[in-house]
Amino acid sequence: MEYFTVIKSRQNARYKALLKTLSGKLPAGVLVLEGKRLVMDALNSDITPELLVFADDPAGLKMHAELKDVASESLVLAEDLFKRLSDTVTPQGVLMLAAKEERDEDALLHAPAGATLILDGLSDPGNVGTLTRSAEAFGFDHIIYRSDGVSPLSRKAVRASMGSILRQQVFRVHNVAAVVDRWTRESTPVYALDMDGRPLHELERTDGGFALIVGNEAQGISEAVRKTKVIPLSIPMEGRVESLNAAVAGAIAMYELGGKRCR
Amino acid sequence: MEYFTVIKSRQNARYKALLKTLSGKLPAGVLVLEGKRLVMDALNSDITPELLVFADDPAGLKMHAELKDVASESLVLAEDLFKRLSDTVTPQGVLMLAAKEERDEDALLHAPAGATLILDGLSDPGNVGTLTRSAEAFGFDHIIYRSDGVSPLSRKAVRASMGSILRQQVFRVHNVAAVVDRWTRESTPVYALDMDGRPLHELERTDGGFALIVGNEAQGISEAVRKTKVIPLSIPMEGRVESLNAAVAGAIAMYELGGKRCR
Repeated sequence: MEYFTVIKSRQNARYKALLKTLSGKLPAGVLVLEGKRLVMDALNSDITPELLVFADDPAGLKMHAELKDVASESLVLAEDLFKRLSDTVTPQGVLMLAAKEERDEDALLHAPAGATLILDGLSDPGNVGTLTRSAEAFGFDHIIYRSDGVSPLSRKAVRASMGSILRQQVFRVHNVAAVVDRWTRESTPVYALDMDGRPLHELERTDGGFALIVGNEAQGISEAVRKTKVIPLSIPMEGRVESLNAAVAGAIAMYELGGKRCR
Repeated sequence: MEYFTVIKSRQNARYKALLKTLSGKLPAGVLVLEGKRLVMDALNSDITPELLVFADDPAGLKMHAELKDVASESLVLAEDLFKRLSDTVTPQGVLMLAAKEERDEDALLHAPAGATLILDGLSDPGNVGTLTRSAEAFGFDHIIYRSDGVSPLSRKAVRASMGSILRQQVFRVHNVAAVVDRWTRESTPVYALDMDGRPLHELERTDGGFALIVGNEAQGISEAVRKTKVIPLSIPMEGRVESLNAAVAGAIAMYELGGKRCR
């Protein structure tokens, strides 16, 4: 027989602290994974589980029996308390707080081998998560985000990424233009989605590392980045459409540049 | 000097009826457009404006002066009343109810010339709207949706379409498989996104009308459609990604099939 405490009071100090952490902006490098599938995915990745929270319901207690010792701390909460922490309509009885290494520009002196996705100040977490998911599908395994944009580690972005964020290297960068400038001087091609760019499919392929920049939903690529030697690329469109959704445009470009198309 | 009535009471019968219409499922063929840009876009399309609603604030009253006579009815509402009707975080002082022709399977005996997008029971209005936006960009001007899925005329889908829905022919269909079956017997190619399909880029192009089916976010293409002579197509992926977001996958396929790529 196993014993554990079920937290039942909203006034419980540990619960109040946790609710506060999860309600506001998460500390840097912390991510929240909800539901059995994402939690299991995370346990198979290189993140560090810090806290597992289970609901006092059949599904939650089943997972508690399996997983209670994998994180340094684990809690069981009364159903209503758990529900308040959950970000989803139908909570699945388990959520995890974990630490994921997030590096900064010092780790980006040179361009990584392979394909890098650069998020130049996106503001919609759904788009950021969807881009992370597409990035993995098309072989982009480094993601750089501008520190004043939405983080791919934010809760909604993690959910929209369907777990792909767990398998990406993430870099938080203040000055994206400085990184891009350095890389282009070293002859790394850095492409930027821009309506006035060359049609994407006319691009000649090169071997070696490269990066793709996706700009903000409304403003596009930032002024500072525009002044570097980026290679602007556009997606040819018909009709009266002014632009594509940022996650869609980024995915099409990653499909062309990094996917298996025309290889 | 112009005179008009500002509705200020939540008990006003016209207001209550309107709130009820906008809070529930919209009647078939009715769409709601919010904000100056979408309203102006709509007035330049073939939809029929039925009701314009303005907020009693500077932006709303300015648009009221310009536009009050373009619909058969127009109302000015106190700011708080307007806000309750609005679906957006920062209401822009104007919204319009309009009628858009929505046809049924009787209009689809033969495949239309050009490119048709078929939504086989999608459940996320954001995806449906984003697909509508991408459809216009890549030359798809007919959209068929399964009647038990999200309608591209629903409020959230209209917003995500950024106005593209206004320039599409929309068909509401109960039995998608029957339509597809008829078309394939007449040798119209009907492609379906399916993980087990042939890689998208290996496809040989044909001239003439064709259709692309995008399936439900979780279940994919429906069983009934699978049993027809659709041509399954897949998007090659790397990593441990099981699938792409439905709006992303649909956009990549439309880009390949209908866009300017490799033409």
